[in-house]
Amino acid sequence: MAGEERAALEQEIEFPYDSVEPASPNLDVALDPAPSEAVAGHDDARLVIFAWSGDLDRMWPTLILATTSAAMGQETTVFFTFWGLFPLVKNDVRITGENWMQKMMSAVNRGGTDHLKLSKMNFAGAGRGMMMKLARDNKVASPTELMELAQEMGVRLIPCQMTMDLLGLRREDLIDGLEEPAGATTALLEAKGATTLFI
Amino acid sequence: MAGEERAALEQEIEFPYDSVEPASPNLDVALDPAPSEAVAGHDDARLVIFAWSGDLDRMWPTLILATTSAAMGQETTVFFTFWGLFPLVKNDVRITGENWMQKMMSAVNRGGTDHLKLSKMNFAGAGRGMMMKLARDNKVASPTELMELAQEMGVRLIPCQMTMDLLGLRREDLIDGLEEPAGATTALLEAKGATTLFI
Amino acid sequence: MAGEERAALEQEIEFPYDSVEPASPNLDVALDPAPSEAVAGHDDARLVIFAWSGDLDRMWPTLILATTSAAMGQETTVFFTFWGLFPLVKNDVRITGENWMQKMMSAVNRGGTDHLKLSKMNFAGAGRGMMMKLARDNKVASPTELMELAQEMGVRLIPCQMTMDLLGLRREDLIDGLEEPAGATTALLEAKGATTLFI
Repeated sequence: MAGEERAALEQEIEFPYDSVEPASPNLDVALDPAPSEAVAGHDDARLVIFAWSGDLDRMWPTLILATTSAAMGQETTVFFTFWGLFPLVKNDVRITGENWMQKMMSAVNRGGTDHLKLSKMNFAGAGRGMMMKLARDNKVASPTELMELAQEMGVRLIPCQMTMDLLGLRREDLIDGLEEPAGATTALLEAKGATTLFI
Repeated sequence: MAGEERAALEQEIEFPYDSVEPASPNLDVALDPAPSEAVAGHDDARLVIFAWSGDLDRMWPTLILATTSAAMGQETTVFFTFWGLFPLVKNDVRITGENWMQKMMSAVNRGGTDHLKLSKMNFAGAGRGMMMKLARDNKVASPTELMELAQEMGVRLIPCQMTMDLLGLRREDLIDGLEEPAGATTALLEAKGATTLFI
Repeated sequence: MAGEERAALEQEIEFPYDSVEPASPNLDVALDPAPSEAVAGHDDARLVIFAWSGDLDRMWPTLILATTSAAMGQETTVFFTFWGLFPLVKNDVRITGENWMQKMMSAVNRGGTDHLKLSKMNFAGAGRGMMMKLARDNKVASPTELMELAQEMGVRLIPCQMTMDLLGLRREDLIDGLEEPAGATTALLEAKGATTLFI
């Protein structure tokens, strides 16, 4: 996303943390890519999210928390595993997988941030549609926008190698700009001493 | 809940942590609102729960862990977001929301701790009914009782501002005694250095 | 599992952390029961998992993370609560519970690591079958194998006493080698200062 596009995006959508009353009055949480020293860069707090679910209603908080954390100057890592791999699939890739079982799974569970479903009340897409409309009306960024923003803000996005093998997802099925695929050991090493959430 | 009512409630229901064997013999975990100094007040451990789900089977552990943590003298915060907002709706409020989409969501997903459903095996309420009966038989407090208790024990209950906007929930739809609505930044600041659980 | 069987198992299945690129080149993460001093024994990091779900797709990451953590030399505890109790039921026990409600729950939700279902796309067992087949083809250990391995590696498996009472599960319904049943207080005491995940 080029600088211009991003500026446009920032004007168009109101980021969730914009409306947040900072806990401390001199805490200036902003989307500034070079955040004030008081907040970022010197914050040794870190956030590690295990993004296990590919559902819209879980991917949303995952990406909102990740981008908020990055805006606060925290080192932020999202480790995508199991169903959580599907949102990393490129939006224009239809079927993934190398054998019929993997293909069938991807057919039922289409990948890409544009195609996420609600875990409940999806109503064959009606619930999803309503939720997306409510989000737009409230100027909440979509998962696709938030994923782009996360990358731009330096959130480290790590796909789980084992799940990729299991589901037959190849690196070229996934969006650009991800870290090298890794495993549970890497995720647990990252988690040491960090705030950790399994979503 | 007045002191008397609470005493009655305590006699009636056996709180879950009552039956817990303390890990250390001189650890006196009690429901005493002024717990022994050895345990509480000087414990710098904190618990922060992200209560994302409004399901009965997730709200139960959320509230049991929160009240147990408070009884241990830990500073405890629950940040209610997404579906997790619905249990904060007053039990006598039927439909919430300002437009038809929000109203429809609340119609399908009635708020209030008295109306929570199981995430699985709900069987149109039969599973829920069985679970509540089993809980009563085992003297496990209900979500409604635990929510009251949490408030009385000083657990900080924070509703997510963004979700309130999204779902059209107004402050007066929600139960009394909550903290000011806040956002992801506040939640992440609270989470620093605390035990954090995303439920 | 005797030493021989385990050696055979190790040859047969490729453990997930085998294929992980260590974050630091001199970090030798291995399945060695006496891991190199550089990694284990001196690692004061700890992992505590709240295993709330009994679904195949959540029990898998629970056990993979737990065994990986143990292989890294971290003290590792899994606290099984609510639906998470069912995977601890012996695989040959069919119906558990003392009254008809508890019996009915166990009939619908059969316990044991051999009988776990996917939380989505289970398709009356077809999805589960495909996932297990994909796992075998990729030499990923099954939940039953991982549970045995976890025990052998010294992962502490704690069943939640309150849930056992609620569901009418008796100690003899559950597999051998578990820690004493405990409650929320114990779990929160374990969680202090550890990496904690609610799965």
